Amino acid sequence: MDKKIHILVSNDDGIDAQGLYTLARALKRFSRVSVVAPSIQQSAVGHAITVRTPLRAHEFRRDGEVFGYAVDGTPADCVKLAIRSLLKEKPDLVISGINDGLNTAVNVIYSGTVSAATEGTILGIPAISVSIEYTDKPDFEPAAKIAAKLARFVYKNGMPKDTILNVNVPAIPAAKIKGIKFTRQGRSRWDDKFYQRKDPKNRDYYWLAGDMRVLDRDEDIDQVALKAGYVSITPIHFDLTHHKFLAEMRDRWDGKLKIKL
Amino acid sequence: MDKKIHILVSNDDGIDAQGLYTLARALKRFSRVSVVAPSIQQSAVGHAITVRTPLRAHEFRRDGEVFGYAVDGTPADCVKLAIRSLLKEKPDLVISGINDGLNTAVNVIYSGTVSAATEGTILGIPAISVSIEYTDKPDFEPAAKIAAKLARFVYKNGMPKDTILNVNVPAIPAAKIKGIKFTRQGRSRWDDKFYQRKDPKNRDYYWLAGDMRVLDRDEDIDQVALKAGYVSITPIHFDLTHHKFLAEMRDRWDGKLKIKL
Repeated sequence: MDKKIHILVSNDDGIDAQGLYTLARALKRFSRVSVVAPSIQQSAVGHAITVRTPLRAHEFRRDGEVFGYAVDGTPADCVKLAIRSLLKEKPDLVISGINDGLNTAVNVIYSGTVSAATEGTILGIPAISVSIEYTDKPDFEPAAKIAAKLARFVYKNGMPKDTILNVNVPAIPAAKIKGIKFTRQGRSRWDDKFYQRKDPKNRDYYWLAGDMRVLDRDEDIDQVALKAGYVSITPIHFDLTHHKFLAEMRDRWDGKLKIKL
Repeated sequence: MDKKIHILVSNDDGIDAQGLYTLARALKRFSRVSVVAPSIQQSAVGHAITVRTPLRAHEFRRDGEVFGYAVDGTPADCVKLAIRSLLKEKPDLVISGINDGLNTAVNVIYSGTVSAATEGTILGIPAISVSIEYTDKPDFEPAAKIAAKLARFVYKNGMPKDTILNVNVPAIPAAKIKGIKFTRQGRSRWDDKFYQRKDPKNRDYYWLAGDMRVLDRDEDIDQVALKAGYVSITPIHFDLTHHKFLAEMRDRWDGKLKIKL
């Protein structure tokens, strides 16, 4: 097979994560894969980039050969450094994952997995982010198959350059997955709790905990589709403009809001 | 004056930053202000939250009195911890800034200043993020006046709970500012360059640098409005769904994309 497709693979769980390995192996069957991923776990880093310290990258070996570059930075750093400096040619696609934990609803904002994909689109390359629902015994194979299928589909059919496909796979046996739903990002969020404790020197500290509170019911919402046994694919982008309220502001606020300096 | 409005103030430059101090002072003239901000500089952290280590908060004194809480975490951590644990009552508004540097276009994604405001809206509180164009001698006063005016306006007129007003102020004398424009987030991004260097032990490292490349021309785009001498106010939210492409996917991809597991 002529391996025409060149795919940059990254994640936020670190270059030695099983999800990344399973993903890269599935993609290598039909594409050239470049792996550039954080040297250590980077969950919940959001779209952080490193601007105050330099980055280092070193070759990471696995199965007796060079598997990719490990970067001592964030997921967004990895994709930026890969595309701007480490790779000799631009990839056709960026795929981030497979994350061990869903990236739906408000988690999209906190997610390092999604941010690696987002950085791809910022640099003009369509991207896919892949996550599975957390369990004690994660099985990354179904999600890797879905990612491989999507990669070929997107390469063949095209996708706007500013778009990320945010893919989430439910933790049910592959045979029970009902299919794919194209979804919207939901409004579900965390019921955060901070556990306030005392350290051995009697000083306060706070641990973040809490559960996801599902606030949506519509079938075309990411969390709802997953609960119903579907793979959720949400197209996302990085235009955060609240267009509906912008129209309202122009209508109702203009003329009313005067600021004297 | 009856100080009915309660405002939570945070930033990403750290609790000792001049921009935060100027903002808090301006807001205290008409509101009760709670300050909860990072203990150290947190630029470009995106919407990172701390999930693997505990957070600590300590009182920070300034001008001989308690100014606020310093938290050894990210801007989003500060707002989460403040609203969920440190403050006795929920604030009416979250205001983040004043950042010494614009948060427009793609910077909105990387911005710690914006992420503090975003966390406010995630927790159901309308928020404002305020930034000024970087210069050698930053003057935070005009932006502080604008923030104070906006806070009262939003308190009086209301705003959807999921909305952040992303305010950016150009670095021109206050008298020359032409007014306010309600804008969209632009597509301008960085022409990233990584400078590859050798450390004293002859190992490679990479420094991120580069300039903002303005890609937009429409007058209602954040960067364009600023260049024209206006204060830019962009309403943003955290629904990243690419609604236009979602409609296209449902139209063109459905039925075509089959995945066998």
